[in-house]
Amino acid sequence: MTQGLFITFEGGEGAGKSTQVKRLAERLRATGVEVVVTREPGGSPGAEAIRDLLVNGATDRWSPITEALLMNAARRDHVERVIAPALARGAVVVCDRFADSTRAYQGAGGQVDPAFIAQLEAAVVGETRPDLTLVFDLPVSDGLKRAAHRGGGEARFEAKGLDFHERLRAAYLAIARAEAERCAVIDAAQPQDEVETAVWAAVQPRLKA
Amino acid sequence: MTQGLFITFEGGEGAGKSTQVKRLAERLRATGVEVVVTREPGGSPGAEAIRDLLVNGATDRWSPITEALLMNAARRDHVERVIAPALARGAVVVCDRFADSTRAYQGAGGQVDPAFIAQLEAAVVGETRPDLTLVFDLPVSDGLKRAAHRGGGEARFEAKGLDFHERLRAAYLAIARAEAERCAVIDAAQPQDEVETAVWAAVQPRLKA
Repeated sequence: MTQGLFITFEGGEGAGKSTQVKRLAERLRATGVEVVVTREPGGSPGAEAIRDLLVNGATDRWSPITEALLMNAARRDHVERVIAPALARGAVVVCDRFADSTRAYQGAGGQVDPAFIAQLEAAVVGETRPDLTLVFDLPVSDGLKRAAHRGGGEARFEAKGLDFHERLRAAYLAIARAEAERCAVIDAAQPQDEVETAVWAAVQPRLKA
Repeated sequence: MTQGLFITFEGGEGAGKSTQVKRLAERLRATGVEVVVTREPGGSPGAEAIRDLLVNGATDRWSPITEALLMNAARRDHVERVIAPALARGAVVVCDRFADSTRAYQGAGGQVDPAFIAQLEAAVVGETRPDLTLVFDLPVSDGLKRAAHRGGGEARFEAKGLDFHERLRAAYLAIARAEAERCAVIDAAQPQDEVETAVWAAVQPRLKA
């Protein structure tokens, strides 16, 4: 089975991930590879229906454990129907958020037992682990300011308070330290062109000849 | 904390559970206790929204593992917002389907790893385990005939084929054997008045004075 390359973007709100996902996809396409750009929660018709339940409604619409289960249900559908098939045919998959978001948001942020989060991840992700994860790092106050400016999007999560978002940032940095071969921390406070350069410097060595 | 009584109804399609849930609730109310009648998937506003995703659409809309995650997301919401609060105030909760349905449908039927189903159940149900489970047993062909007659309902599951439903029946009987103190097998092929009598014979000794 030919194997593609699985790249995930992670980080808090307003870190500029979406812009950089687009820029990376353009650069990758210019090299002639097949690129599949996708996102979580969502990315397949079933997962997008679950996303609607997750991102809308009151902040306390779901408890963190229910949220972790919904996220993983959406993830499983996305992996089975989009990500794994694309990797099997050799594509580069660029995904805006993946399993680290559940570790950070529902685990560190929502204080769901990390052992349970790990059991879910093992069953749901299986062998479809990212080859490279770009962790976009930014002071919390800057990120929330940018997210508020942007509007729309994941309002339920943006509303969860400063303390929640500080735990989130610390969790992402801890993941990047613990899995340094997989993760590259990107300083998201830089101008966008410099962020783009940093992303490409992390991705380019992983591309197969 | 005062503790109520948690009674679940389980079994394959067309076993007549819904009718008997209503009859049991009437008998219980006549004794003067508070009775909360509910069902899964569903039973709380959030869980009912998840139910819509689960019971509609093509038979293969979700893979069994995604289904197990959605069922448990709905269950967690239902437990947190309806079942646990009702038990805490001393009510009798009568629930049409609960965690055994996931063991049977997604586990035995859908062949999801039973160890993963058990991890989900431990995290999601916690201490809110049923005090009594009535397992409605019926030959598969009779049940499907009745379900087809009835129409509506859980069409995605009814369409899964005879072999699936045979695994389901065997799984329920195995649960009842393994957890005999909790489970009572009800012969659902009997006339409804006799089923009602059998249900009451199982429930009555559990009622607190």
